[in-house]
Amino acid sequence: MVTSDAAAAAGPQRRDAAATQRAILDAASELFCRSGYDGAGTREIAGAAGVDARLITRYFGSKENLFARVVDEIFAKSLLMSPGNNKAAARELLADPPPRLDGMMLTLRSAQNPRAAEIMRDHLERNYQRQLAETLPGDDAVGRAALLIAICSGVQLMRNVLHNSALSDSMVERLAPHLEAALDVIAYGSAPRT
Amino acid sequence: MVTSDAAAAAGPQRRDAAATQRAILDAASELFCRSGYDGAGTREIAGAAGVDARLITRYFGSKENLFARVVDEIFAKSLLMSPGNNKAAARELLADPPPRLDGMMLTLRSAQNPRAAEIMRDHLERNYQRQLAETLPGDDAVGRAALLIAICSGVQLMRNVLHNSALSDSMVERLAPHLEAALDVIAYGSAPRT
Repeated sequence: MVTSDAAAAAGPQRRDAAATQRAILDAASELFCRSGYDGAGTREIAGAAGVDARLITRYFGSKENLFARVVDEIFAKSLLMSPGNNKAAARELLADPPPRLDGMMLTLRSAQNPRAAEIMRDHLERNYQRQLAETLPGDDAVGRAALLIAICSGVQLMRNVLHNSALSDSMVERLAPHLEAALDVIAYGSAPRT
Repeated sequence: MVTSDAAAAAGPQRRDAAATQRAILDAASELFCRSGYDGAGTREIAGAAGVDARLITRYFGSKENLFARVVDEIFAKSLLMSPGNNKAAARELLADPPPRLDGMMLTLRSAQNPRAAEIMRDHLERNYQRQLAETLPGDDAVGRAALLIAICSGVQLMRNVLHNSALSDSMVERLAPHLEAALDVIAYGSAPRT
């Protein structure tokens, strides 16, 4: 979202603008993940990026828009599972090193702000959840994709945030098949048993 | 944890002591759930309870001990599922009104403090997770109980905190059987439906 002013139009300045935006995004990612949406102020973000706070407004419009950009970047790197590969997903969720936790931390620390929760939800629904749903056969694919994401996020929460000792790395061989079976029954299962 | 001083020993004062402890616990529950372990100070809790902050030290010893008591009370009321009834658990998790969210909120807002995370993890492992494991046939019951809790907490996170629209109340009839099947395959090792 480069503004069309003269500074942004020239070559070297354009590179400066891109570098400034990158520095702001990096600082915002770190601070939003650490302190949550409400806990990280634009002045603090600008300070960490080494830029004037007015540049956040110039390049991103608002703290809300900056947060949305951070969500786009972090959620894209924090996919909970590879669509169609529940065996790999179950192992990755239960093995060391743990998967990237940025997305989980951003969610945990920002979800109490309703607007931040809305931004994260919309991103998830429009992107990853929809892509996952497209790989699922059968009815209610979007709802079942949401359940698969919920399962993976719950395992991350219990294992990597609460450090539940029953889900330690040493259990991966024994527990991954159970987790895989649960993912499979939602992804590929037919009529519910009665 | 009533101290043995003269005030606590007498009858009316003993009742006062119980009422004071109750007021502190109620205020602490509300503030820890709203602001997390780090965000709620003992002075603020004492203020909300209408008591002198020194009474928190007298009755609970420390903020950490007070938090542990709050965890005991809230987690006991926030059971994610009735052991052995996955059908009811799946419906309750996906239907309105949502289940009690205190335990989830306390977890989300306090887990970034390592000591608070440890207190919550220990409580969960010693109580609910162990009880649930005792109802599960087969090997690795504790690990599978942890997976069941993880699944339920993930659904709470996605549905009640992020408000994922794919998990709305209107979907309960269609999605509960899938969630139930996932819980069943972990609890009872039923072969996935094909």
